[in-house]
Amino acid sequence: MKVKVIVTLKDGVLDPQGKAIQQTLNGMSFSEVKEVRQGKYFDIEVSINDEEKAKVKVDEMCKKLLANLVIEDYKIL
Amino acid sequence: MKVKVIVTLKDGVLDPQGKAIQQTLNGMSFSEVKEVRQGKYFDIEVSINDEEKAKVKVDEMCKKLLANLVIEDYKIL
Repeated sequence: MKVKVIVTLKDGVLDPQGKAIQQTLNGMSFSEVKEVRQGKYFDIEVSINDEEKAKVKVDEMCKKLLANLVIEDYKIL
Repeated sequence: MKVKVIVTLKDGVLDPQGKAIQQTLNGMSFSEVKEVRQGKYFDIEVSINDEEKAKVKVDEMCKKLLANLVIEDYKIL
């Protein structure tokens, strides 16, 4: 089955890439954009059919590789 | 309000970064990982309170800047 993960910067961690996107959008006449934060998205195909077991495994992957827990949060969808 | 967007590579478009993550996970004893596809995630704060109007605006941003529609798909959450 497929498990989806979103990794985002924690609140308070500077996001220069998001800031650049926000400024670009503002310059493209999207003046209503107040803030952009960029994150990462992963679509992980695992050979486990039990949803709960698959999510436990993916949680472990997030902790060990996919997210840097010092500055990032992750959410398994 | 905040609008969330996920941008992913279209099926069939090579994803060397996802492949590298998959191989790394396999090497870390996560042998159950069959495929990883990486995408981008955006958290966009707009000064529009109507959900539908905000999403229409963000859809326009996706088409014009956030996604490359030749190789990418996007989804507004």
